[in-house]
Amino acid sequence: MRKIGVKEIEDIAVGAAVYGTGGGGDPYVGKLMAIDAIKTYGEVTLLDVDEVPEDAIVVPSSMMGAPTILIEKIPNGKEALSAFSLLKNYIGKEISATIPIEAGGLNSMIPFAVAATLGIPVVDADGMGRAFPELQMVTFSLGGVKSTPMILCDEKGNATMFNTINNKWTETLARAVTVVSGGSTMLASYAMTGSQVKETSIKGIISTTEKVGRAIRIAKSNNTNPVDAVLKASGGFELFKGKICDILRKTDGGFVRGESKMMGIDEYKGKSIKIEFQNENLMAQTDDGKVLATVPDLIVVLDIETGHAITTETLRYGNRGVVICIPCDEKWRTEAGIKTVGPRYFGYDVNYVPIEQRIKSRMGEF
Amino acid sequence: MRKIGVKEIEDIAVGAAVYGTGGGGDPYVGKLMAIDAIKTYGEVTLLDVDEVPEDAIVVPSSMMGAPTILIEKIPNGKEALSAFSLLKNYIGKEISATIPIEAGGLNSMIPFAVAATLGIPVVDADGMGRAFPELQMVTFSLGGVKSTPMILCDEKGNATMFNTINNKWTETLARAVTVVSGGSTMLASYAMTGSQVKETSIKGIISTTEKVGRAIRIAKSNNTNPVDAVLKASGGFELFKGKICDILRKTDGGFVRGESKMMGIDEYKGKSIKIEFQNENLMAQTDDGKVLATVPDLIVVLDIETGHAITTETLRYGNRGVVICIPCDEKWRTEAGIKTVGPRYFGYDVNYVPIEQRIKSRMGEF
Repeated sequence: MRKIGVKEIEDIAVGAAVYGTGGGGDPYVGKLMAIDAIKTYGEVTLLDVDEVPEDAIVVPSSMMGAPTILIEKIPNGKEALSAFSLLKNYIGKEISATIPIEAGGLNSMIPFAVAATLGIPVVDADGMGRAFPELQMVTFSLGGVKSTPMILCDEKGNATMFNTINNKWTETLARAVTVVSGGSTMLASYAMTGSQVKETSIKGIISTTEKVGRAIRIAKSNNTNPVDAVLKASGGFELFKGKICDILRKTDGGFVRGESKMMGIDEYKGKSIKIEFQNENLMAQTDDGKVLATVPDLIVVLDIETGHAITTETLRYGNRGVVICIPCDEKWRTEAGIKTVGPRYFGYDVNYVPIEQRIKSRMGEF
Repeated sequence: MRKIGVKEIEDIAVGAAVYGTGGGGDPYVGKLMAIDAIKTYGEVTLLDVDEVPEDAIVVPSSMMGAPTILIEKIPNGKEALSAFSLLKNYIGKEISATIPIEAGGLNSMIPFAVAATLGIPVVDADGMGRAFPELQMVTFSLGGVKSTPMILCDEKGNATMFNTINNKWTETLARAVTVVSGGSTMLASYAMTGSQVKETSIKGIISTTEKVGRAIRIAKSNNTNPVDAVLKASGGFELFKGKICDILRKTDGGFVRGESKMMGIDEYKGKSIKIEFQNENLMAQTDDGKVLATVPDLIVVLDIETGHAITTETLRYGNRGVVICIPCDEKWRTEAGIKTVGPRYFGYDVNYVPIEQRIKSRMGEF
């Protein structure tokens, strides 16, 4: 148990944007919401998973929608609280703590804003250990936790509650409502007990992202290479270094989908790669079709100068970046995990191979 | 107060299909559901509006979706009951009676199926006095009744509850859920008190549709003209007589939209008209653009032989029909009524002129 103040939030936001793996929402908007709440209501208690009582009710607080939209359609700050309050009334039990659903720029921050306002702790864990585009793509689902009853609130004051037969249906129905609500909404979902959190969550992810964010900050103040600092703090691998030379992006059906192409620089000169995404980066491959990395491993484009993650919605022609890959949590490497978020789920005719094996078999070659 | 059995249901279904004004769902499917429930659970009590206690809770039971879809995706019969039961639990009060939301082939029948099963009465009134394509297009809305809390259930077992800032938002959100649920769902909405029913509903519409259905049945058994019988029983006007020579129909965004063209026969030979629809018929005009009738008046195509309504989803090339227009209820002829369901709401640059005036000013000419 420790306190999270403005300084910690700054590091977590930067690190979570890396774990957002191209998606997860804009870290700047999320950070402002969390900092504003902490300045108004005080610091937030961060609980280790082991410190959560078995019978405590823990509810993730999160945003749904395409990150491209959230840059311009900023939450009013009340939707997440309304969703929480409606869910509490419905289940008829006090909510003891909140938890991020994913480690993305925005969805890592919303729980801190909610926690500060309500005076409840945040649990140091999440349901992805990264960001994913769809609601059912959480380790909570793998562990049998139901996403519903789920409350969805928009900034206009509309509230929708779902009770579904499975978590994929929750995604389908809530996405449809989100799209007609203007493209982004706030959710309270996956209400679970402390013991379910212990069984199904990815532990310590907030501290992990904080460590990565801090490494970037320290590298900057020491004038050392921030990308190297990220690789060291995250256990990731460098895949490529280049300039964005082409980008295709389409906001459709509640997602931003597209691909970016990069031309190599330095030791990668003369080579080029393509990264495809649906909110988050899904697959990186060479121009001649050799797969470099796929979901569920984390494919991240870092700004070559600052080490900060470049999200899919802010990628611009000419950005110079280092593409890295961070191994995903072991929960995603099970049969059920790969079925839920592996390359085949996203329509790629490719088997999942852990990034460590891909790197090893490449034997130093590109 | 009187009892509604299978014989009455047959007449109501036929008459309600006329008042469905091209939409309102297939009368056959609805009739089967109601008759099945009455045979199993017994006859249904039909209450006059004046007989409903002021503080009784009355809840409409209805289908949402494109009628084209409902022909093939038949309800399993439990969705409407689930929606009712979830709404009852949410508001924490017993539901004393149900009422049709509209006088369409299907939505006039669902309340009888629900009422028979639950052993509650149906109120002889509705919220349209006809059918309309969108959820907020009810006289309940004009009278300030909220559509939410509303429960939407699909046949798979998913349930969604809405609490919105206005009835148009309920339409938007529920339509989105209905589309991704396969195109049709069942609703419990517009929960209101007996006194609200008295103030805002269109009274006696079930008896009116029964009278029209009975007139068609009697004309058939007497070998007299069934179209004349409909005109007499409904107070409608004949607009045209012809053959369907062209039909455009598209199921899109939860509606069936399109237009049908008819070539005149008998005294209309050499003339032709076009009818545009969104689930229900919206406007009838001559080929050279002269408006014959618009919403909110009821434009209905009757089969020339049987007098039965031909719904927009069953219109076929070669159908011979008589186009009639029945004056709408006075509630729709107010400023608020015309704003909600007049031709301009549907995108036509035309003022609403009551059909009686149009007929009078035409002075016998086409």
